[in-house]
Amino acid sequence: MSLKKCIINGVIVTMDENRKIFEDGFVMIDGNEVIEIGHMGDFKVSGDVEIIDANGGIVMPGFVNCHTHISMSVFKGLGEDMPDRLRRYMFPMEDEILDRNMVSTGARLSLIELIQGGVTTICDMYYFEDEVAKAVKESGIRAVLGETILSKPSPDSDEPYGGIEYAKGFISKWKGDSLITPAFAPHAPYTCDDQHLMEIRRLADELDVPITMHLSEMLHEMEEFDSKYGKTPIRHLEDIGFLSERLIAAHLVYVDDEEIGILKSKGVGAAHNVVANAKSGRKVSPAPAMHKAGMKVGLGTDGPMSGNHQDILSLLGYYTKIQKQAALDNRICPAAEAVELGTIGGARVLGMEGSIGSIETGKKADIIIIDTSAPNMQPIYDYYSAIVYAAHPHNVVMTMVDGKVLMSDRKLMVMDEKKVLDEVREVSKEIRKFALELDRRARS
Amino acid sequence: MSLKKCIINGVIVTMDENRKIFEDGFVMIDGNEVIEIGHMGDFKVSGDVEIIDANGGIVMPGFVNCHTHISMSVFKGLGEDMPDRLRRYMFPMEDEILDRNMVSTGARLSLIELIQGGVTTICDMYYFEDEVAKAVKESGIRAVLGETILSKPSPDSDEPYGGIEYAKGFISKWKGDSLITPAFAPHAPYTCDDQHLMEIRRLADELDVPITMHLSEMLHEMEEFDSKYGKTPIRHLEDIGFLSERLIAAHLVYVDDEEIGILKSKGVGAAHNVVANAKSGRKVSPAPAMHKAGMKVGLGTDGPMSGNHQDILSLLGYYTKIQKQAALDNRICPAAEAVELGTIGGARVLGMEGSIGSIETGKKADIIIIDTSAPNMQPIYDYYSAIVYAAHPHNVVMTMVDGKVLMSDRKLMVMDEKKVLDEVREVSKEIRKFALELDRRARS
Repeated sequence: MSLKKCIINGVIVTMDENRKIFEDGFVMIDGNEVIEIGHMGDFKVSGDVEIIDANGGIVMPGFVNCHTHISMSVFKGLGEDMPDRLRRYMFPMEDEILDRNMVSTGARLSLIELIQGGVTTICDMYYFEDEVAKAVKESGIRAVLGETILSKPSPDSDEPYGGIEYAKGFISKWKGDSLITPAFAPHAPYTCDDQHLMEIRRLADELDVPITMHLSEMLHEMEEFDSKYGKTPIRHLEDIGFLSERLIAAHLVYVDDEEIGILKSKGVGAAHNVVANAKSGRKVSPAPAMHKAGMKVGLGTDGPMSGNHQDILSLLGYYTKIQKQAALDNRICPAAEAVELGTIGGARVLGMEGSIGSIETGKKADIIIIDTSAPNMQPIYDYYSAIVYAAHPHNVVMTMVDGKVLMSDRKLMVMDEKKVLDEVREVSKEIRKFALELDRRARS
Repeated sequence: MSLKKCIINGVIVTMDENRKIFEDGFVMIDGNEVIEIGHMGDFKVSGDVEIIDANGGIVMPGFVNCHTHISMSVFKGLGEDMPDRLRRYMFPMEDEILDRNMVSTGARLSLIELIQGGVTTICDMYYFEDEVAKAVKESGIRAVLGETILSKPSPDSDEPYGGIEYAKGFISKWKGDSLITPAFAPHAPYTCDDQHLMEIRRLADELDVPITMHLSEMLHEMEEFDSKYGKTPIRHLEDIGFLSERLIAAHLVYVDDEEIGILKSKGVGAAHNVVANAKSGRKVSPAPAMHKAGMKVGLGTDGPMSGNHQDILSLLGYYTKIQKQAALDNRICPAAEAVELGTIGGARVLGMEGSIGSIETGKKADIIIIDTSAPNMQPIYDYYSAIVYAAHPHNVVMTMVDGKVLMSDRKLMVMDEKKVLDEVREVSKEIRKFALELDRRARS
C-alpha cells in the first residue's frame, strides 16, 4: 500500500491539451502517478495522505531540459567572450585533464542547480556518461543520457568511434530503468561519418532507444557540407536515411522552411538552445516557425560553458523576447507558448509526452511549485506571464520527480550540497591551474 | 562620532577606472562614505566598527536603474503579448482609475524588488511623483524622480502641461535632499511641443536639475517627425537647442551614427532598456556603438508592464547576449562591459559618477554583496562572467545605500514587506475588475 501525496491550495497550471487551469486546486498522487486533479471545493482526504501545501503558488509540470552537457559545469565561465574558446580551452581540457571525477563532480553540481530551478527531466550527452548516470540516479531526476560518439579518440576512448561500443554497454545496463533512458549520442554530422551514423541508426532501432546529436549549429558545419555535398547537413542526412522520430536534434540554427518540412515529416525533435545560441553570437533559430509547422520543439540550456546556467525558467523569457525582437512583433511567441516549449513541448521532443510534460491523470508526478507570494511575482493577472516574464529560478520552492520530493522550501532532499560544493572547489583549483598553463602556451 | 562599518572577506569588484579587484578584501565605511579599501592581510580593527562578513562573496557597487516607472508594478502582466496594449489597457487605467494610493502601493512593491535585486539608485518618472518620493524616502534608496509632463491632462493634472507646475513645486520641496534628486520629466518629443520643451530646458538650467525623457523609441514617433519636419526627433531637438548634458534620454532605439555623434557632443546620457525593448518587439538599440563612441550609457528596466521586473542583474545577461546575437559575434559586449553599464555607466548617465557607481575612497557607500556559495554561482574563474552570466537577483544577499543596510540575508530592514503585499492584493482586485470592464467595452 503506497502512501498517497496531495498538493493542495495551488493554482494548477496543467498544460494539458485544453490548457486547463484550476485556480484553487489540488493534485492527488499515488506512488509515482497523478491520480486526480480537482478544485479545492471537491477535495476530501481519505486514508493516509501526505499533504503538501502550495500556499496559493503555481503548481505546474516540471521543466524539461532537452539538451545539455551537465558535467561541463566545472568549466563554467572559463575563457569567456573569447574567440575560438572551444579550441583554446575546452578541447585541451577534455583531451588532457578531464577524468571520471570531474565528470561526476560537474554532473552533481548541475543536478543541484537543475532541481533547484524546477527542471525534472534532462537530455544529456558527454563523456564517461556512466558517471553521469550514477549522479543522475543519486539525484532522482528523470533523464535521457548518451555517451558522445566521435570520429577521433575521446576522453574515455582511445579509438575513434569507441563511443559506439561504450553506448552499447551503457544501453544494456540502463535499458528499462524507471528514470534513465539510455541513448546514442553521435556528436554531430561533421564529426561522425555516414557509415557510423547509419550504424548508430540501425543499432538505435534494434535496441529501441533515442539518438541525440548537434545539428545545423555551426557556420563551419554548413560551409563544410556545402562544399562537400553541395547540400545542407539536414538534406544530406535525409538522403542517407538517417533522420527519424528517434532523433533529438540540438540547436537547428541554420534551417530553412523546406528543411522544417523535412524534419517534421521525419518526426525529428528540436532542442532549441536560445541562450547558448545568443551568447555564441549565432543567428536567431527559426524555432517558432518549427513549432508553428507542427514540429516537436523544446528548450535546452546547452552545457554550462555556453549558457552558464541549467534552469529552463530563465530560457522562457529569453525565448519569447528574442523572437519578438527578431520579428519586430510583440504578439508572437506569447508567454503560454514559451511555457509549452519548456514543458510538454520538451516531453514531445524526448518522446515522453505520454508520461510527462503536463499534469494529467495517469501521467508521472513530475511537478514543481512556484511561490507567488514573493514581491517579484506580485500581482498576477495572467499565470503564464508571471511564469515567463516575472519568475526567477529561486521562486521554485518544490521539485517533485516520479512522485518523490527532491527539493522543498529551497532545501535539497537528495544529494549533499555542501559535499558537492567542496568537491567543486577542489576540482576547480586543478582546472584553474591548467587554464593558466593554456594561457602560457598561447603566449609562447 | 559616527559608527564605522566594515565589509570583510569579500571579492571587492571596485569598478574603478583601473577595474581593480581585491580578491580577499575589505571596504571600510564611515557614515555614508567609503574611507578605505584594502586586502584582508592589511585589515586592522580599531575602535567601534560594525563588521559585515561577505563570506567570500562578491562585493560590488549597487546597480543603477536609469529608467523606470516603479508604480506601474500594480499593472504588471496585464494584457500581455497583445497588440496596442498601451491604448487598450494602460491609458484607460491611468485616465480612469489611477490614484495616489495605487501609485504609492506600486512604488513600494517595486522598491522592495529593487532593493532585493541589488539596485541602489533609480531614475523614475510617473504621475503623483510626490507619492513616489515618499515611498523612495521610506525605502532608503537613491533616486532621480520626475513628474511626467504631457500635452494633455494627466492623472494628476486637469490641465495640459500641468506637470510643469507640479514639477516646480516638487523640485523646490526635494532639492538638496541627500538621496532624492528632483527632475523634470517631459514624456516624449511627440507628446510635448517645442515651446514647452524649451521652457523645461530653461527651468532645468535655472533650478539646476536633470531632465529625463523618452526619445527615439517608437516607430510612430520616427514617422511623425519625418513627415512633420523631415528630420528625426534627435536632429529636431538639436536644432531647437533642447539637447544638453542634463538630458537622460530613455530608449534611443532608432539612432544612427551621426546622431550618436550629436548626442555625445551634447553630453546626453542614454538609458538603454534592453529587456523592455525586446519584449515590445523593437529593433536592437545601437547601445554598444554609443558606449564605444564615448557616450554615457546605462541600463534601465523601464516600467514593470514592459520588462516585468525591476532588477538590473537580469538585464546584464540580456544586454550582452542580445548584442552578440545581433552582431553575430561572441566577442562583443564582454561581461565586464555589461557590469560597467549597470554600475558606473548608469552613474554617468545620471550625472552622479563623482559620488556613486564604483567602490572608491570618498564615494558614497552604495554597495551590494552577491553570494558566491550558491550552486548556480560555482565555480568562478572570472568574476564579471559570474555576475553577468550566472547570477540571479536572489543571489544578492546584502544591499547598502548611503552606508545604510537596506537588506541583509534576503531580509528587508526597511519597509514592511507583508503590509505592502497585502495592499497590492487589495489594489490588484480593483485593477482586475476594471480590466474585465475594458474587455467588455472592447467586445461591445
